[in-house]
Amino acid sequence: MCGIFGVFGSPKNEAAKWTYYGLYAQQHRGQESAGIVSSDGENVFSHFKMGLVSDVFKKPSSIENLKGSLAIGHNRYSTTGTSNEFNIQPLLVKTRFGSLSIAHNGNLVNTIELRQKLEEQGSIFRTSTDSEVIVHLIAKSQKATLEERVIEALLQVKGAYSLLIMSENQLIVARDPNGFKPLSYGRKDKSIVFASESCAFDLIDAEFVREVEPGEIIVVDVNGIKARKFADEVKKTFCIFELIYFSRPDSRVFGEFVDKVRRKFGKFLAIENNSVSDVVISVPDSSNTAALGYASTAKIKFEIGLIRNHYIGRTFIHPDQNMRDLGVKLKFNTVGGVLKDRRVTIVDDSIVRGTTLKKLAKLLRNAGAREVHVRISSPPVRFPCFYGMDFPTSKELVANQMTIKEMTAWLDVDSLSYLSIENTLEAAKISLQNSNGEFCDACFTGNYPENVPPNEKNIFQKC
Amino acid sequence: MCGIFGVFGSPKNEAAKWTYYGLYAQQHRGQESAGIVSSDGENVFSHFKMGLVSDVFKKPSSIENLKGSLAIGHNRYSTTGTSNEFNIQPLLVKTRFGSLSIAHNGNLVNTIELRQKLEEQGSIFRTSTDSEVIVHLIAKSQKATLEERVIEALLQVKGAYSLLIMSENQLIVARDPNGFKPLSYGRKDKSIVFASESCAFDLIDAEFVREVEPGEIIVVDVNGIKARKFADEVKKTFCIFELIYFSRPDSRVFGEFVDKVRRKFGKFLAIENNSVSDVVISVPDSSNTAALGYASTAKIKFEIGLIRNHYIGRTFIHPDQNMRDLGVKLKFNTVGGVLKDRRVTIVDDSIVRGTTLKKLAKLLRNAGAREVHVRISSPPVRFPCFYGMDFPTSKELVANQMTIKEMTAWLDVDSLSYLSIENTLEAAKISLQNSNGEFCDACFTGNYPENVPPNEKNIFQKC
Amino acid sequence: MCGIFGVFGSPKNEAAKWTYYGLYAQQHRGQESAGIVSSDGENVFSHFKMGLVSDVFKKPSSIENLKGSLAIGHNRYSTTGTSNEFNIQPLLVKTRFGSLSIAHNGNLVNTIELRQKLEEQGSIFRTSTDSEVIVHLIAKSQKATLEERVIEALLQVKGAYSLLIMSENQLIVARDPNGFKPLSYGRKDKSIVFASESCAFDLIDAEFVREVEPGEIIVVDVNGIKARKFADEVKKTFCIFELIYFSRPDSRVFGEFVDKVRRKFGKFLAIENNSVSDVVISVPDSSNTAALGYASTAKIKFEIGLIRNHYIGRTFIHPDQNMRDLGVKLKFNTVGGVLKDRRVTIVDDSIVRGTTLKKLAKLLRNAGAREVHVRISSPPVRFPCFYGMDFPTSKELVANQMTIKEMTAWLDVDSLSYLSIENTLEAAKISLQNSNGEFCDACFTGNYPENVPPNEKNIFQKC
Amino acid sequence: MCGIFGVFGSPKNEAAKWTYYGLYAQQHRGQESAGIVSSDGENVFSHFKMGLVSDVFKKPSSIENLKGSLAIGHNRYSTTGTSNEFNIQPLLVKTRFGSLSIAHNGNLVNTIELRQKLEEQGSIFRTSTDSEVIVHLIAKSQKATLEERVIEALLQVKGAYSLLIMSENQLIVARDPNGFKPLSYGRKDKSIVFASESCAFDLIDAEFVREVEPGEIIVVDVNGIKARKFADEVKKTFCIFELIYFSRPDSRVFGEFVDKVRRKFGKFLAIENNSVSDVVISVPDSSNTAALGYASTAKIKFEIGLIRNHYIGRTFIHPDQNMRDLGVKLKFNTVGGVLKDRRVTIVDDSIVRGTTLKKLAKLLRNAGAREVHVRISSPPVRFPCFYGMDFPTSKELVANQMTIKEMTAWLDVDSLSYLSIENTLEAAKISLQNSNGEFCDACFTGNYPENVPPNEKNIFQKC
Repeated sequence: MCGIFGVFGSPKNEAAKWTYYGLYAQQHRGQESAGIVSSDGENVFSHFKMGLVSDVFKKPSSIENLKGSLAIGHNRYSTTGTSNEFNIQPLLVKTRFGSLSIAHNGNLVNTIELRQKLEEQGSIFRTSTDSEVIVHLIAKSQKATLEERVIEALLQVKGAYSLLIMSENQLIVARDPNGFKPLSYGRKDKSIVFASESCAFDLIDAEFVREVEPGEIIVVDVNGIKARKFADEVKKTFCIFELIYFSRPDSRVFGEFVDKVRRKFGKFLAIENNSVSDVVISVPDSSNTAALGYASTAKIKFEIGLIRNHYIGRTFIHPDQNMRDLGVKLKFNTVGGVLKDRRVTIVDDSIVRGTTLKKLAKLLRNAGAREVHVRISSPPVRFPCFYGMDFPTSKELVANQMTIKEMTAWLDVDSLSYLSIENTLEAAKISLQNSNGEFCDACFTGNYPENVPPNEKNIFQKC
Repeated sequence: MCGIFGVFGSPKNEAAKWTYYGLYAQQHRGQESAGIVSSDGENVFSHFKMGLVSDVFKKPSSIENLKGSLAIGHNRYSTTGTSNEFNIQPLLVKTRFGSLSIAHNGNLVNTIELRQKLEEQGSIFRTSTDSEVIVHLIAKSQKATLEERVIEALLQVKGAYSLLIMSENQLIVARDPNGFKPLSYGRKDKSIVFASESCAFDLIDAEFVREVEPGEIIVVDVNGIKARKFADEVKKTFCIFELIYFSRPDSRVFGEFVDKVRRKFGKFLAIENNSVSDVVISVPDSSNTAALGYASTAKIKFEIGLIRNHYIGRTFIHPDQNMRDLGVKLKFNTVGGVLKDRRVTIVDDSIVRGTTLKKLAKLLRNAGAREVHVRISSPPVRFPCFYGMDFPTSKELVANQMTIKEMTAWLDVDSLSYLSIENTLEAAKISLQNSNGEFCDACFTGNYPENVPPNEKNIFQKC
Repeated sequence: MCGIFGVFGSPKNEAAKWTYYGLYAQQHRGQESAGIVSSDGENVFSHFKMGLVSDVFKKPSSIENLKGSLAIGHNRYSTTGTSNEFNIQPLLVKTRFGSLSIAHNGNLVNTIELRQKLEEQGSIFRTSTDSEVIVHLIAKSQKATLEERVIEALLQVKGAYSLLIMSENQLIVARDPNGFKPLSYGRKDKSIVFASESCAFDLIDAEFVREVEPGEIIVVDVNGIKARKFADEVKKTFCIFELIYFSRPDSRVFGEFVDKVRRKFGKFLAIENNSVSDVVISVPDSSNTAALGYASTAKIKFEIGLIRNHYIGRTFIHPDQNMRDLGVKLKFNTVGGVLKDRRVTIVDDSIVRGTTLKKLAKLLRNAGAREVHVRISSPPVRFPCFYGMDFPTSKELVANQMTIKEMTAWLDVDSLSYLSIENTLEAAKISLQNSNGEFCDACFTGNYPENVPPNEKNIFQKC
Repeated sequence: MCGIFGVFGSPKNEAAKWTYYGLYAQQHRGQESAGIVSSDGENVFSHFKMGLVSDVFKKPSSIENLKGSLAIGHNRYSTTGTSNEFNIQPLLVKTRFGSLSIAHNGNLVNTIELRQKLEEQGSIFRTSTDSEVIVHLIAKSQKATLEERVIEALLQVKGAYSLLIMSENQLIVARDPNGFKPLSYGRKDKSIVFASESCAFDLIDAEFVREVEPGEIIVVDVNGIKARKFADEVKKTFCIFELIYFSRPDSRVFGEFVDKVRRKFGKFLAIENNSVSDVVISVPDSSNTAALGYASTAKIKFEIGLIRNHYIGRTFIHPDQNMRDLGVKLKFNTVGGVLKDRRVTIVDDSIVRGTTLKKLAKLLRNAGAREVHVRISSPPVRFPCFYGMDFPTSKELVANQMTIKEMTAWLDVDSLSYLSIENTLEAAKISLQNSNGEFCDACFTGNYPENVPPNEKNIFQKC
């Protein structure tokens, strides 16, 4: 759950600026920290800090100092309890071949085993990220070129990775053979750009070329662009949660616009589980499109019943406990005129812990809703993710602990239903015509694509 | 264009915290600066700063130090070119009767004349706000009570004012006889609260009692609440722009939920000027409700065609000029799947300068829209506002300079139409059943409710 | 206890920069806040903040924005318990004649009476400073010119004032008829400068011309420099504490270099009260010169027995109470080699509360001093100051509460003696040949130069 | 040129606070950055930042969060051109044995060779410090205990190091066999403390036990304190510049109070090269003691002729070039009364580039000094230092480029003389009775204690 952006061959000294915009457009993928490393072919420049992109690069000089036509950047997601400055990416180190920096989206699943092996050989670690393992493997490789060293490293790691790797004069891009996480490839005039989501291209007027393919490595340098497969073909397991919740609706992910898939989820949900109500509302902004799809198929009026306050920031003073439910009220306000005396269907994209939804349901009732029906445009999240999605432990996943009937009671709503796993996959498959509908649905089914060591979770920072 | 909040009789030392939440809920009414003055009955405490509410009160101590059960607060709107720290409100001064603080929403129209008179008597001014004139008039009054001094002052000023005035132990609230600006009166247990918009009440679980009436003054102190009219009745002239654009849709303003009026504007607009198109989109978030109303009456599908980026902040580094149209793209991104090859109707609430809309139209075309039809849920803004709405000079108002046909060409869209003034007033009148439909529509018609000196504008800070 | 600086006629846009340096050189006169107001002849620019000069003007733009060839600046001293942002000077207001700003060093003694009168006429006050009274009196004057208005105002106030007053195009300078506080007049090429202390001139290579005389007003504008007496001659009462402690030793104050007077205090002290000891040390840095004078006359070796840590700042985390005496140890460390097994005479300039000295004496003993003899190069401070020196109340002045014998026991030292009042005045008189030895010695004798209302103290901010 | 502090066995959670005070007392040894790592026996806590100790630990929580009874800290010196956040110490990494942190004062001379070897084995480097090499060597060692791993590492490095190394539950301290840099060992109740200079002990009321010996390693853990030699005895080469300039005069360094040695330098200088003058002044604060020693032997009056401004900070706005010599004037002001018409001898501790001294000499003349005689209490600095002292290249060392006669002319002074190398060593030898007078004097003589590769300098950060 991070965002990455890279550029090779920008006009002089523009690479860091493009990367800045690319990170800004992908701010939703990670708000804890941001960083950019650039190169002018000889020297490497960097700036990192905890905070939003616009805070990290508050001073114009923070970007102007990052010279060169080559740059990579990274937005890190905040994972509860373990945030610290050491983990800010891109990681930047010096090896015998010069400087090496890396921006990583995704999580490895054999980190512990690899790290132990490396530590036994005397390697030292600065961070608690799995990404640092990749850096060590590259540095240890005896291969002749950076490309070969990267491949040798990647063949040892398992799990999810969309990677940008940068030396003083090369940009190397790679995606794991399963293709868990998205990675887009674009072009702006003669410059080559990469980003987790294509919305980053729109901002700088770059054009979308294609997705980097699973198992593909692309080397960009003064000799041009060289792309090839570095791993044997395996079954694709695109992260379906990117489509359900995480990516921006205006991005292409896995090759298609996200909002199309989300509207389809809403439509299928309406077919499966229509509700008898006067009005359909969404939880803004993430479930807007699914709610619109639901409403149009269900033929119920779509209205804006919740207003989101966008001024809430990290610095908000924590409210006292005397004001119950204040947290959710700081974020959402109900629109009385829409809700009063109405039967309300509220569409949300997913339920993780369920605490926010429970409070929202209560707000709706306080605003006069006569009935509250909850419709979720994905299946129940019952299992943790080891590939980068920041779900809590099974015990904290409400759908792991309760039946839907129990949840309906606990949420104190009139009805609750989810989109079935079959229709979820079908909707995704229809929308993404080129994808063959090959998705990782482990968070719903527990069927993990690879053998994941049971203790792997909660040890390394996700990204 | 500012937001105010006041409380009398909160539980011990809670007044500043309530005011903080009240200002936070009204952040949209002013982002330049924020301030709170509180009183424990003997001593007065204050904290002000440039910035958003959550920045101004970043440190918990900044609120905890504001002791007492009485407080008023203010959010100031940023007016181009003249922002400075001297103008932060509430104004707090010392007079022979003790401390006096004031929070003002609205603009006076006889400031110059009054200020000259005061300066000739040796009064000194710290700020460039018209609000300071009111403070001087109160301080100069020889009347026996603060209430009488306030009334004497108000009878000398002309224009728009919703006012909160505070001494060590009284909260006095007043609204100009025309009732230009809204002012809500609420209650939470035994505490009395006031706010520009009722959304501030929702956040602290206070209940809406009624609007403060035009020409009414309310005195709250240990002896209770005393309300009376201080001025002769005049024709009401509620600011219709509060309904069209400025207030939050979940607020009650002039006694009714704003979103109801806005949906009605959209519906009437569709009746007047339906477009032949495949999809209706809004400019989020201000025109969402009007667009929904339009779509439902026009029977065209409503979709989310523009995504708003909420991470953009004050600290955003200004983009260079090489990237044309970057400003609007930092704020909005198009959703390709919704727009491509479609005939698109975009509903906006109003056009002021028109530059943003022109860029949005181009973004829509670049995203593949086949036709772009613009529908505005209010009449053309042709005249400046002297009562607090931050419109530019007539020359900068595009509807003052061009015909609708010229604007259509300039915007480079397929069609453009506005809601008529008649239907605007009718929609507002229907929605606000108690209002008698008495509105100030000077920005559309040039019919100002009072004689405004021609040079009044652009001299004093608006609020 | 504040520092002021003003300039007229600097090269284009340099006035604020000179003032910045002038305030920096006088930082010792006030560390709570700093501010500069400048004028380019038409517009007035200002920047103020709490903090040291180098913090207040941290960004280059904070000075560059202050355009023009005319400027005044002010450093405010921190007075316990009442520091706040409203009191930052220069005060800047708008009157019917345009903008007016004022920087004031000294304290008035009839503030309450004047303020009551002004408030009864409806004047409002923003600050708790006596300086604001002067602004009101000037604004209320009906005289034709600013100079005459200033004079009319000054003839109403009593007490200490060295004043810089600025309109868009005039700099007016005035000093009270008693001449309590110093005020130097200098020149750099064609520019005229003023400062509390001449050390401010050295930094910008300006030359010292003379002191502004008691009761003199100087008007500087495009017509040149006009100086005259505005008040009848009265007995001079120069503040002797400026010479004893407050001014920098490298400044000219009351016309002579301060270090000369201080060395003389030390020499006279040795004649009066020599000690039998092995080494003389000072409390750095304020008593260095007096200690050198003492040592040379007493013919005892001067050594550096205490090292002062200059890294201690406002932001230092307050130490816990488990570490006794940590406060003074953060500031001073003993030099073991100088003190061990020695009889030590420590010279200090004055004793106010005595708490620091008591802790220093203990540090000296802990470092191995066999005997500790305290010599003070001024008389016992027994009475509060109403003219600007920030002494505490009589009860907190240790010399008001104890005899010298009692203090010796309380300080736990082997001997304690002070310079007599006669020799203090004689030393000052000899050193300042032009002064006629006319000093305010009220803090030692209780003989105040004017009738001071008993309740005047502790009400208004000192400066 | 850095400062280090370590503690084992403090009362619960006090270790970080003691370290904070220890770093504060040693702020003069490094102002670029500061950091502390602490351990509660299981978990390791850290906080680092660019800036002064009091800025880095501005928030009380920044220290409170550093739990445990074991901690080490580091102040880094600013070296021109290469300062960056990666180099902040203590370095903290994770190895197969757990966390490892290190604080290092001194410079290695075989860094390049070791680093190449490590990089060839695939080690990656984050910093440009030589200290990181030590960390890698420790991590790579296959020895059974941390103590043995540290020894194996140290036997591979050459150069200067006073080291604090910390695991979760051990504090290991080591000093290079030459003993270039000082390292003091102290005790406070049952806690063991270490610091570069003993002044750090005074602040926390710890007592000085002894210096850590050259070639000694000390292991402190729950089993107690174990000290032993880890290397064969070699000739000691204490850095004589610590005595001449770098250490605080109130510290014990190499076993003796620094101020004693410095006074002796001054006395010997007077014997060698007395000047005929009216007054002796120092360059405060570093040459105060030497100047006092000089004056007493030369029987010339010591006076304070230069005042140092301590408000100058990192944030000071850089003066423009129109004001020549402003830099030195911001730092020093002349005392006119002391200098005018006098023959002045100014004592300084050393001359590196000579630019400041040249400007000071001019200031003295401008203040009226009739003659200016410069006396330096050490020999000419002619050669760079490879062991940690931040001298520039030979070309920038004025004494390397000019004869004394040429320097006298260039400085524009009446005479210049230095203390001879013989008397420098003799004075140090007499003062440090236990030292056998074994010093590194390479900066004066070019006789480096070890073979230093010619390109070693200017590549790695000094500390």
